[in-house]
Amino acid sequence: MTRQTKTRAPLGQTAPEHFLLAIEAGVATITLNRPEKKNPLTFESYAELRDTFHALRFDDQVKTVVVTGAGGNFSSGGDVFEIIEPLTKMGASELHAFTTMTGDLVKEMRGCPQPVIAAVEGICAGAGAIMAMASDIRIAGAGAKVAFLFNRVGLAGCDMGACAMLPRIIGQGRASELLYTGRFMPAEEGERWGFFNSVTDKGGALAAAAAMAAQLNQGPTYANGVTKRMLHMEWAMGVDAAIDAEAMAQALCMKTDDFRRAFEAFAEKRTPVFEGN
Amino acid sequence: MTRQTKTRAPLGQTAPEHFLLAIEAGVATITLNRPEKKNPLTFESYAELRDTFHALRFDDQVKTVVVTGAGGNFSSGGDVFEIIEPLTKMGASELHAFTTMTGDLVKEMRGCPQPVIAAVEGICAGAGAIMAMASDIRIAGAGAKVAFLFNRVGLAGCDMGACAMLPRIIGQGRASELLYTGRFMPAEEGERWGFFNSVTDKGGALAAAAAMAAQLNQGPTYANGVTKRMLHMEWAMGVDAAIDAEAMAQALCMKTDDFRRAFEAFAEKRTPVFEGN
Amino acid sequence: MTRQTKTRAPLGQTAPEHFLLAIEAGVATITLNRPEKKNPLTFESYAELRDTFHALRFDDQVKTVVVTGAGGNFSSGGDVFEIIEPLTKMGASELHAFTTMTGDLVKEMRGCPQPVIAAVEGICAGAGAIMAMASDIRIAGAGAKVAFLFNRVGLAGCDMGACAMLPRIIGQGRASELLYTGRFMPAEEGERWGFFNSVTDKGGALAAAAAMAAQLNQGPTYANGVTKRMLHMEWAMGVDAAIDAEAMAQALCMKTDDFRRAFEAFAEKRTPVFEGN
Repeated sequence: MTRQTKTRAPLGQTAPEHFLLAIEAGVATITLNRPEKKNPLTFESYAELRDTFHALRFDDQVKTVVVTGAGGNFSSGGDVFEIIEPLTKMGASELHAFTTMTGDLVKEMRGCPQPVIAAVEGICAGAGAIMAMASDIRIAGAGAKVAFLFNRVGLAGCDMGACAMLPRIIGQGRASELLYTGRFMPAEEGERWGFFNSVTDKGGALAAAAAMAAQLNQGPTYANGVTKRMLHMEWAMGVDAAIDAEAMAQALCMKTDDFRRAFEAFAEKRTPVFEGN
Repeated sequence: MTRQTKTRAPLGQTAPEHFLLAIEAGVATITLNRPEKKNPLTFESYAELRDTFHALRFDDQVKTVVVTGAGGNFSSGGDVFEIIEPLTKMGASELHAFTTMTGDLVKEMRGCPQPVIAAVEGICAGAGAIMAMASDIRIAGAGAKVAFLFNRVGLAGCDMGACAMLPRIIGQGRASELLYTGRFMPAEEGERWGFFNSVTDKGGALAAAAAMAAQLNQGPTYANGVTKRMLHMEWAMGVDAAIDAEAMAQALCMKTDDFRRAFEAFAEKRTPVFEGN
Repeated sequence: MTRQTKTRAPLGQTAPEHFLLAIEAGVATITLNRPEKKNPLTFESYAELRDTFHALRFDDQVKTVVVTGAGGNFSSGGDVFEIIEPLTKMGASELHAFTTMTGDLVKEMRGCPQPVIAAVEGICAGAGAIMAMASDIRIAGAGAKVAFLFNRVGLAGCDMGACAMLPRIIGQGRASELLYTGRFMPAEEGERWGFFNSVTDKGGALAAAAAMAAQLNQGPTYANGVTKRMLHMEWAMGVDAAIDAEAMAQALCMKTDDFRRAFEAFAEKRTPVFEGN
């Protein structure tokens, strides 16, 4: 039941330095944890997040990931003095190395088989908004607000895939407005536009995300990873090719034991118990 | 006025075995018709639906298609004992043949020139949800509910093109949730999200779909087929290429008699009467 | 600060013949101006609009564009006697030249670096609806209504990129309905569906668009142009390629003076003043 040729220690045996990681019942909860500064990202936390999501590809104990922030905010994005100031002094190739690293974080979030659920309270801005966007499902607590505020710091909206991904989530016109203006989108507007899947009471996003993660982990988790891979693969495919790709992917899933377990359970009028294989 | 080199009997002269087919005033109404089991799909009905939509490419009497279900439900999808059980016993190549067949149904629904309108009441699940999704326009009766419930039977959400098509209809985040959880989306939520074009009173979806089909059939039906083809062709094209493709397609439509008829009618201050050529 | 090798007079020194053009504080306002006929488009105005948007690529005085109509309507589209009648008499190659010209207008609207904001009151139909659709942001006055009414004149919905662009703005199902039926979408529905970014009081769209343009012009306008270019480039790219493309684009923006200005302003606790370079 190991994924590929596993060459690393499971994530549960390592403690990241720049955020909290708790693994329980197959759910990895990543908590951005510098609440006094609203959980900004730093060079080190970007890299460690990237490596952690990469390691998830090979970790068969973790079935679903929850990403959240400590202290009532999700993340304020890149810190002014820890990120922006050094960037203003870098040369072109160093800058490109930095933007490649941040982009790689999104690639790893999309590349690991586990669905990622963002639990968003308070401020969710800049690279924080990107991490929410790069998740599969987003749950907000009332009062949360999201800004792709790159424009406010003199940059373009095309950060870490936003010009590709945000339009597919909320539509091209609404995405354009958010990316050109950098304005905050309140939680309720975000739900109405399809950015947030739901809005809970203030402070309730993490519990709702954990409940959904627990529900997903009751499902056929290998098949969930196939769903995620296909959502990714089919992004820019024509319809007919996508249908062909799914015919092969679903035939593969029909050879899993979980599919057989489902049938046996239905035949015996009980709830199926999936094992993720 | 024949389409391509017609080599088949018109659809109206054949009676399908596994669903009802009524053709009247240029509208073909396909009714899934095993109401006692909520109109499940079987190996035979998949194949016959596929062949029927294929035959529509060559049938110039049918201008619009309505798909619905008998007895207050749309379709419960693949039957547990008629579909799922045999699948659990098949080898890889047989399974791939099956998923290719079901995918081909969607390809044929997208490949025929007639707009397809789904009239959805009650349960619309699994392959039934896919048939609704693969339609051009969807009308729900109050109380209808839709589930891409593959996940619940141990499979992935990537069934018959769902990972490509559902995100373009309701957005990537909402589609992800439905595909990972398999949960039911009620009619009202489906309307708010753009899955349903409208919601009628309970039991009213078919009449509303028939009215819309009658309206479409008053229009330039050849041009409607061109619209459908271009929506399909441009799915994964860049913007500039799509514009070039449309320049050629629309110039072709400007050479139809319907375009001339429209001008003449406007000049004479009467409603144009289109003939679909 | 000149764009590419500038070979033309700035737009401000030329007065277009077929619409109004006012340039003030870096905002070019294009007003379709035949209010007695609801601002229809003609062969001449299409060509001049195309050339004007093309010239904007080389005009570094204009940072944002507002498009609107005079007299309480946006545009009724192609005129029956000035456009449609002559088209009914053209040969295939002439028709293709015409549809290429109209398509080129959309390409130029998407190809110029300035964000384009449509201020829509009253009737917005046919090619008028396309010009609104091809804008980056759309603001409606109450009572505005939009119809992609090509179907009503015997044509297909695939006009000037509509089958590619409209589904990405409002979703595939809703776009299909509008393109097959040609029906009007009222402003409120358009806002709910994501076509309009907001709805003002009747008659208030232009002021709201001007205010947004002024706000965008306070921002890093070079970066705004990069955002626009990337939204265009990434339309049909896979996610990973889009992320790589953005890594390069954003690294470039990090070498602008505006980015440095933003940091310096934040460090000194003042609002940044951007210069668009």
